[in-house]
Amino acid sequence: MRLVGLRDGRDVLVSRVLGDRLTPVAQVDDFYADVLKWRAAAAAVTAGERPLAGARLAPPVPAAARVLCLGLNYRRHAEEGVYGVPDHPTIFGRWTRSLTVGDTPVPVPANEPGLDWEGEVAAVVGDRLSDVDAATAERAVLGHAVVNDLTARTAQKLTAQWTLGKNADRSGPMGPLVTVDESGPLSTGLRLTTRVNGEVVQEGDTRDLIFGVGTVLSLVSRTLTLEPGDVLLTGTPEGVGYVRTPPRFLRPGDVVEVEVDRLGVLRTPIVGPEER
Amino acid sequence: MRLVGLRDGRDVLVSRVLGDRLTPVAQVDDFYADVLKWRAAAAAVTAGERPLAGARLAPPVPAAARVLCLGLNYRRHAEEGVYGVPDHPTIFGRWTRSLTVGDTPVPVPANEPGLDWEGEVAAVVGDRLSDVDAATAERAVLGHAVVNDLTARTAQKLTAQWTLGKNADRSGPMGPLVTVDESGPLSTGLRLTTRVNGEVVQEGDTRDLIFGVGTVLSLVSRTLTLEPGDVLLTGTPEGVGYVRTPPRFLRPGDVVEVEVDRLGVLRTPIVGPEER
Repeated sequence: MRLVGLRDGRDVLVSRVLGDRLTPVAQVDDFYADVLKWRAAAAAVTAGERPLAGARLAPPVPAAARVLCLGLNYRRHAEEGVYGVPDHPTIFGRWTRSLTVGDTPVPVPANEPGLDWEGEVAAVVGDRLSDVDAATAERAVLGHAVVNDLTARTAQKLTAQWTLGKNADRSGPMGPLVTVDESGPLSTGLRLTTRVNGEVVQEGDTRDLIFGVGTVLSLVSRTLTLEPGDVLLTGTPEGVGYVRTPPRFLRPGDVVEVEVDRLGVLRTPIVGPEER
Repeated sequence: MRLVGLRDGRDVLVSRVLGDRLTPVAQVDDFYADVLKWRAAAAAVTAGERPLAGARLAPPVPAAARVLCLGLNYRRHAEEGVYGVPDHPTIFGRWTRSLTVGDTPVPVPANEPGLDWEGEVAAVVGDRLSDVDAATAERAVLGHAVVNDLTARTAQKLTAQWTLGKNADRSGPMGPLVTVDESGPLSTGLRLTTRVNGEVVQEGDTRDLIFGVGTVLSLVSRTLTLEPGDVLLTGTPEGVGYVRTPPRFLRPGDVVEVEVDRLGVLRTPIVGPEER
């Protein structure tokens, strides 16, 4: 099942996509308050069906969701930067206000040479998790989505904390949420490809993740109670732009696409700071 | 004017506190969608007035708010750690799900020796800010609140990114929002005192902030558009527990209080992991 968010004034309705049609299932906070009920209901909903084309979409996660992001979680990406392969998962945060959906223009801040691409796979949590083991956490994953963790490198590197550079306006485009029965777990190996203006710049496979989704969610659950709708970005493979010689960044007019097996293609046009 | 959040099912109503009574003003997202209107309305509201005692409170900020936190923003605290005085403000993030209110018991995670105290003053943003200068940003501050940025040091220090250790369950108690006409700007000097079981452990003055609120919000606004309701925690003065010899942590049964001139006292009892 593929789920998207449909904007309804200030609200978001989790909606099922079937072919070129979408059907609202439940208000987003209601959906995550009872995932089992609404997932089952989603299979049968028909009221409010409408064309997907032209619908105003939003990420299908609550405003309060935590977006936990992993740095350095593919071995060769960890090695291409200055950090090396870590002993523990490196976790930083996005706020949901930085998230958007595919085909939304993303602006380069005026004080950046451009944005950097980071094609990723996200896992969305479907249950409350507190002090759980990795197997329990893995079973609680509702589904996966393609994400581009677009990064403002200047802001990211201003100090040792990456938060600012990871929360530029609309810098976290997220594709439809594909439930696990269709996506499979990431350990089955989903190939990820990032293209800039059609040229392949990243190729990865989720089999190469250093820390798996269950392992990370288990670790996190020792400190904070994960709630349904919380999101884990699993990190990006090698091939980002800032480590190249010379560095390469996304500039206004560029189009970046992230494609992941079974999850789809996420397309993002880059625009100038005047479109913030 | 003092504002708190009143829980109303899953919703929160921004409410005015006058003496020992509170009066709901507006649903929290409505309030921040038109701060000028609702601030003016708040002066005159009477409908729904009730006793403050026994009311179920919540922080008066939207679920989607970004909680930007400053590390190392008092000179002597920056020097007491291993980091030194920074050239740029060090910004990390909390999610609103980690926030709570005074007198709420806060649990120590099972894998921590305790929690560390960090008495702070928060500034709440009252306007949309994108690419603005420091004076404009300073004028957009709606008000201030006492916060305790309770820290899970083991999780914080697991990797170079602090996010996990700064988001333990209920680890961000926040007092009432006191509007700027009553609090004054932080440059006027608000004394901050943190006490553990009555013993003073931190004393600071907001005149000693390395980076002022306007400066930081201006910097942030170059990368991301601040929205009404976003929160900036301005950092903690020297005297935290983990740098002491031997290290000292908050344990179940301890009570920590943060008191700030013109903002009030924020009291937090510490409990064990079984109360997560």
